[in-house]
Amino acid sequence: MNVMSRRRKVGVAVIGMGGAVATTAAAGLEILRQGTNRMDGLPLAHLAIPRMVQYEDLSLQGWDLNAQSLADAAVEHRVLQPDQLASVEPALAALKPWAGVASAAYCRRIEGANMHHASGHRAAVEAISADLSRFQKTGDYDGIVMINLASTERTPAPSEAWATPEAFERGLDADDPAIGPAMLYAYAAISAGVPYGNFTPSTSAEVPALVALAKRQGVPLAGKDGKTGQTLIKTVLAPAFRARSLHVDGWFSTNILGNRDGEALQDPDSLQSKLGTKGNVLDSILGYPVEDHLVDIRYYRPRGDDKEAWDNIDLTGFLGQRMQIKVNFLCKDSVLAAPLVLEIARVLDLAQQRGDAGPQEQLSLFFKAPMTAHGQAPEHAFPVQERMLHDWLMADAAA
Amino acid sequence: MNVMSRRRKVGVAVIGMGGAVATTAAAGLEILRQGTNRMDGLPLAHLAIPRMVQYEDLSLQGWDLNAQSLADAAVEHRVLQPDQLASVEPALAALKPWAGVASAAYCRRIEGANMHHASGHRAAVEAISADLSRFQKTGDYDGIVMINLASTERTPAPSEAWATPEAFERGLDADDPAIGPAMLYAYAAISAGVPYGNFTPSTSAEVPALVALAKRQGVPLAGKDGKTGQTLIKTVLAPAFRARSLHVDGWFSTNILGNRDGEALQDPDSLQSKLGTKGNVLDSILGYPVEDHLVDIRYYRPRGDDKEAWDNIDLTGFLGQRMQIKVNFLCKDSVLAAPLVLEIARVLDLAQQRGDAGPQEQLSLFFKAPMTAHGQAPEHAFPVQERMLHDWLMADAAA
Amino acid sequence: MNVMSRRRKVGVAVIGMGGAVATTAAAGLEILRQGTNRMDGLPLAHLAIPRMVQYEDLSLQGWDLNAQSLADAAVEHRVLQPDQLASVEPALAALKPWAGVASAAYCRRIEGANMHHASGHRAAVEAISADLSRFQKTGDYDGIVMINLASTERTPAPSEAWATPEAFERGLDADDPAIGPAMLYAYAAISAGVPYGNFTPSTSAEVPALVALAKRQGVPLAGKDGKTGQTLIKTVLAPAFRARSLHVDGWFSTNILGNRDGEALQDPDSLQSKLGTKGNVLDSILGYPVEDHLVDIRYYRPRGDDKEAWDNIDLTGFLGQRMQIKVNFLCKDSVLAAPLVLEIARVLDLAQQRGDAGPQEQLSLFFKAPMTAHGQAPEHAFPVQERMLHDWLMADAAA
Amino acid sequence: MNVMSRRRKVGVAVIGMGGAVATTAAAGLEILRQGTNRMDGLPLAHLAIPRMVQYEDLSLQGWDLNAQSLADAAVEHRVLQPDQLASVEPALAALKPWAGVASAAYCRRIEGANMHHASGHRAAVEAISADLSRFQKTGDYDGIVMINLASTERTPAPSEAWATPEAFERGLDADDPAIGPAMLYAYAAISAGVPYGNFTPSTSAEVPALVALAKRQGVPLAGKDGKTGQTLIKTVLAPAFRARSLHVDGWFSTNILGNRDGEALQDPDSLQSKLGTKGNVLDSILGYPVEDHLVDIRYYRPRGDDKEAWDNIDLTGFLGQRMQIKVNFLCKDSVLAAPLVLEIARVLDLAQQRGDAGPQEQLSLFFKAPMTAHGQAPEHAFPVQERMLHDWLMADAAA
Repeated sequence: MNVMSRRRKVGVAVIGMGGAVATTAAAGLEILRQGTNRMDGLPLAHLAIPRMVQYEDLSLQGWDLNAQSLADAAVEHRVLQPDQLASVEPALAALKPWAGVASAAYCRRIEGANMHHASGHRAAVEAISADLSRFQKTGDYDGIVMINLASTERTPAPSEAWATPEAFERGLDADDPAIGPAMLYAYAAISAGVPYGNFTPSTSAEVPALVALAKRQGVPLAGKDGKTGQTLIKTVLAPAFRARSLHVDGWFSTNILGNRDGEALQDPDSLQSKLGTKGNVLDSILGYPVEDHLVDIRYYRPRGDDKEAWDNIDLTGFLGQRMQIKVNFLCKDSVLAAPLVLEIARVLDLAQQRGDAGPQEQLSLFFKAPMTAHGQAPEHAFPVQERMLHDWLMADAAA
Repeated sequence: MNVMSRRRKVGVAVIGMGGAVATTAAAGLEILRQGTNRMDGLPLAHLAIPRMVQYEDLSLQGWDLNAQSLADAAVEHRVLQPDQLASVEPALAALKPWAGVASAAYCRRIEGANMHHASGHRAAVEAISADLSRFQKTGDYDGIVMINLASTERTPAPSEAWATPEAFERGLDADDPAIGPAMLYAYAAISAGVPYGNFTPSTSAEVPALVALAKRQGVPLAGKDGKTGQTLIKTVLAPAFRARSLHVDGWFSTNILGNRDGEALQDPDSLQSKLGTKGNVLDSILGYPVEDHLVDIRYYRPRGDDKEAWDNIDLTGFLGQRMQIKVNFLCKDSVLAAPLVLEIARVLDLAQQRGDAGPQEQLSLFFKAPMTAHGQAPEHAFPVQERMLHDWLMADAAA
Repeated sequence: MNVMSRRRKVGVAVIGMGGAVATTAAAGLEILRQGTNRMDGLPLAHLAIPRMVQYEDLSLQGWDLNAQSLADAAVEHRVLQPDQLASVEPALAALKPWAGVASAAYCRRIEGANMHHASGHRAAVEAISADLSRFQKTGDYDGIVMINLASTERTPAPSEAWATPEAFERGLDADDPAIGPAMLYAYAAISAGVPYGNFTPSTSAEVPALVALAKRQGVPLAGKDGKTGQTLIKTVLAPAFRARSLHVDGWFSTNILGNRDGEALQDPDSLQSKLGTKGNVLDSILGYPVEDHLVDIRYYRPRGDDKEAWDNIDLTGFLGQRMQIKVNFLCKDSVLAAPLVLEIARVLDLAQQRGDAGPQEQLSLFFKAPMTAHGQAPEHAFPVQERMLHDWLMADAAA
Repeated sequence: MNVMSRRRKVGVAVIGMGGAVATTAAAGLEILRQGTNRMDGLPLAHLAIPRMVQYEDLSLQGWDLNAQSLADAAVEHRVLQPDQLASVEPALAALKPWAGVASAAYCRRIEGANMHHASGHRAAVEAISADLSRFQKTGDYDGIVMINLASTERTPAPSEAWATPEAFERGLDADDPAIGPAMLYAYAAISAGVPYGNFTPSTSAEVPALVALAKRQGVPLAGKDGKTGQTLIKTVLAPAFRARSLHVDGWFSTNILGNRDGEALQDPDSLQSKLGTKGNVLDSILGYPVEDHLVDIRYYRPRGDDKEAWDNIDLTGFLGQRMQIKVNFLCKDSVLAAPLVLEIARVLDLAQQRGDAGPQEQLSLFFKAPMTAHGQAPEHAFPVQERMLHDWLMADAAA
């Protein structure tokens, strides 16, 4: 086949395919394919990077514990406008999630019948690998990327099995309980040479064993926990407070949300994972510990997918004088997240074409707890992250 | 005298010396001289730039139409805490403003008895020059900088006299009404080789005649209109919206403030000048015209110097979905402004030592409507401005 | 006809029939007729008052300068959900506004082709009367009520013609410019024995001439300016501040809205009328003048009919200590107003059955500037107003 | 003694005398005695009720586990302005709390050395009674009132001992753990014929045993949990939503505060007591269960006594359309609470003069969970409560 005659096609294998984010992303791709002149929300839409796959040439498929079609899921999530829903219904009806791998020990609240009844870690990995292989063959894709959009897992206690690829293999053999579903998916992706991005707070590809394996296999990684609303605002404002030497005495953040994610976060263990990735950004950007940095997340049904955040920031300025800023963000969780998922997939695919293996720091812009290549502390300041991605992309634009 | 044996001393000649910002700056310098370990609000306090004058070595003096001492002014402005007021009272009592130059045609509301009764432009310039010269001699300063902190003037209609230094000279001879007080001060500064910074929205050093004169005379300029509260937040948030491709459908900004500045802005002409410098930042950063960008400023006495801003931002994201952000900033106008005035003075003095003449773009970070060196559109994005200043300062740190 | 065998039918003749409020009210009646179990927003829905007309038995028709059908108007106003719009489309398509009476001197911005080309006041009154008479005959109603929902007129200078019914008659003969369209409609209603409610700030039935005429003719009146959003909140909170002796130092209110009403208020004269009715409630409730009570209204298109209000209240409590409350109301103008219009019509019709003539104070609950029976200052406190209406209605329930 | 020749003097025995509320109340009385023309924050200051004790004639004293003088406490609480602090310092320095009764099982976090080392319930009651008796003798008061302002206790499991006065006596004999410190104080007060008001959420005089005892002894009671900030706003707004038939779909409330009360609420048991009294007001006023009514309280140090509440209210109006209100209250806890404490003491003393025994429902206005006379559900709507108190007071004014 002549390279010039064909545009690159990429398949995105999504964990949590029936969730609001994945459904919105799939619907969005369909709307883009139907033709639209509005590219709002897609951060990289205005760039012309020759090797980067175009949005219309991305195909989403994947696993979900709920077997309902994405058309049914879309109705339930109530993210799309009625006319949008109508226009994508046929395409979404054809998308039926594959049976997934799950563990009640890692995520209590989310249940579903659409499950691999795999006995043990090795069987689970084989099932995932078989799905990936079939996805690739069916779609005749030039590249495959895996993205984790599943419900947040509890954070397991650190284990020996995470230390090296060899220890991890032994852990798989022994069905080590410190290896959860998110790690099994990541391992399957890396083993198959498939770039892996973790949009959730769950522990997965960032354990040393999988980072080392990815580098060895030449597989790009990215994560973790998509930076969509409140943390986005934090990493935008905090660098400005630092630049103005306004001392942050306290930062109180509360969130109300009523979608499945919010429901899952009623499990205190999952909530703890979520709060973990939200907690460090301020101190890292400001260079000192913020003594009163509180983050609340509450499940509040009247909002559905319309998330709301309220932040109160206490500042001390010149002569010890006190000031306050309050930020109230009425956002839509999936509407903010879905386009980031698409961009992460596109950049991971480009990274693989460029031969970049291991953590892709240039994707820090899209994550609350960015993975770093050499174990250093991540960059959290939004403007610096933006420049990192811009510079990385420009290298390719120039090439 | 041995350079090593003496620290650089700089005198800052302030127009509007009795206002809240100047009074707070003068009080702050006194508190710094008395020794404090808190440098909050001073953006450049943590940098070690050898040639940059230290805060303790700055002395503020200047003109005001109100003859009251700064101690009396400080009581009236109610910015300082009682214990701070007590500690600086003796120092501020000694600061008595010089008689100023004014024009009822340029600023109706602000009246005062402490006025040069100069007949015509040339006499006014001579009076200002004489004050500068006396200030220099009395203080034995290594450098002098002039900063405009006076009440906002109305914006005059553009005039022939602004075009070239020669035309400006003819305008001075002819008492051209298109030359207002702010321009007379700027001209006097430039003529005397004194760097000039305009912290107000008034038309002054940015007219081509004075820019050309400053370049000719080797005098650094900076302006205009200090970026303290709401516009600061705008230039911090808007680059992030652009980076996330969140389309800004509308941005409504309202401000309530009860200090003398607020009172002066009850004059519709002064208000117009103020709104002018606030108006362009969004379109410039976003790259498209924001159709509904509204800015209100209201004089509201219960707050005194405690200014409050409320912003509502309407955004469109992925799939045309709408979101909102509201920002409520309870700030203190003078507390935010005073340290910027000190930093502008320090950087202008350093620029003069480095031989940089004309508009100092690296100071864009501190202004709502930054002057540019070659007439190009200014950079408004806060993170880019921050890097510009950082790079400029680092050149000196390395030297 | 046997009274027992037939439910009372009432026709509501609306001035401004194509506006968002009237269209929403008409659509709402249709949805109620189609059957729904949700009576949200209808304050009197839970009461069983035998003689009060039921919602399903109200019929709206009326005048508008725009001839488009209410189905087309509903599409334009974007208040209804798509499924609601679909269900009421046939009924609204049949509603085509009658040609209205207008005056460019009273309302500059609103133009329309659907106008009576009546030469002079008398001809205008006759045209309105003919419409009322035809409406009555066509619908075979047991009662007719007129409600003013037209765009806000400028406030005319007080005139001799307003003093007595006789002077008003002379003013009509002389085409007195102090008599505007809203007064012509009110006069036509009163003359025809039709109860009249003014939901707008325009000067109309409250002039002494028309009050006297209404009492003489036995016609109930109500007005003026519907109390929907920000003023509602004010009259709810202020009585509590008074009850707690929290002194209101200032109250800053700003509104952004993007519907036709907002557009009309860009005319400074109309805005002045609107601000007039908003201005007095605080002082009246609190018993002292609030020194800084500011109200801004801005036309802001991104919101359409979704109005937003932001209030900041400065309070002084025990020991002179200062506190603040901020209220942010994201409301829908027509959704709040339409049900009030229906209730006002129902109560006016009941008042007529009871023989109550002149200003109906018990309707104060629904107005920003309530009319009073004997020229006394109106009651603004929401809880007191609520009790007044409750007591009036209970008298009928008991009867 | 001639009634005309002497004004009534009342002693208020406060549990929690060193806390911010009691200290502010004591300071406020001193400032009132020194003479001031501002009565802000005192709800009943404008009424002339002949038998009601005047503010200047109230004397506060009481128990605290912390022995520091109120002058030292006032410095620590940082509620008063510096000049206020200076003016009351001598008076407050003379106020040294009596040793208190405490139980680690009821309130874990608050510790103090100033404790009665009473062995068992009977000894504790005797110690309290002795304090009351000494207080009365020393001050020669015409009346004594006890007010509970201590830190919130955990809610004990209901016990047999609460059922009747006799069972309570047996519980005292047996040192029943279901009888906590707040009940011991209340019992001591009632036994001594001293009116008792409970400004905290702790379980005390509302148990049937103590209500019955109070009625038998002719002692007025009031409680519980002072209604100061967020719940005040709730009981003001909710009646208006009901009056407008705006359906409350959800109400999310969060609070940040940094005073000792906030610190005590970090104990989950104490927090539970607090949330208990906050929880029922909405359903009671609205007449239906609000499905999503969430209340968070977080200890956030930057604020000290300056409490802040943020509420988000989701409403459904006409045609099922959704609206939102957000209320942000920047208040001062003690400044709101202290004057209510004074009014409660004055009304309780008046009730005793009038011979009213048991729960004083007319004081509902000042409590989150009002006690009722006959076990019926309490009235929560602020305007109704206001009328109840007004009517009760007017009976006395008329007498």
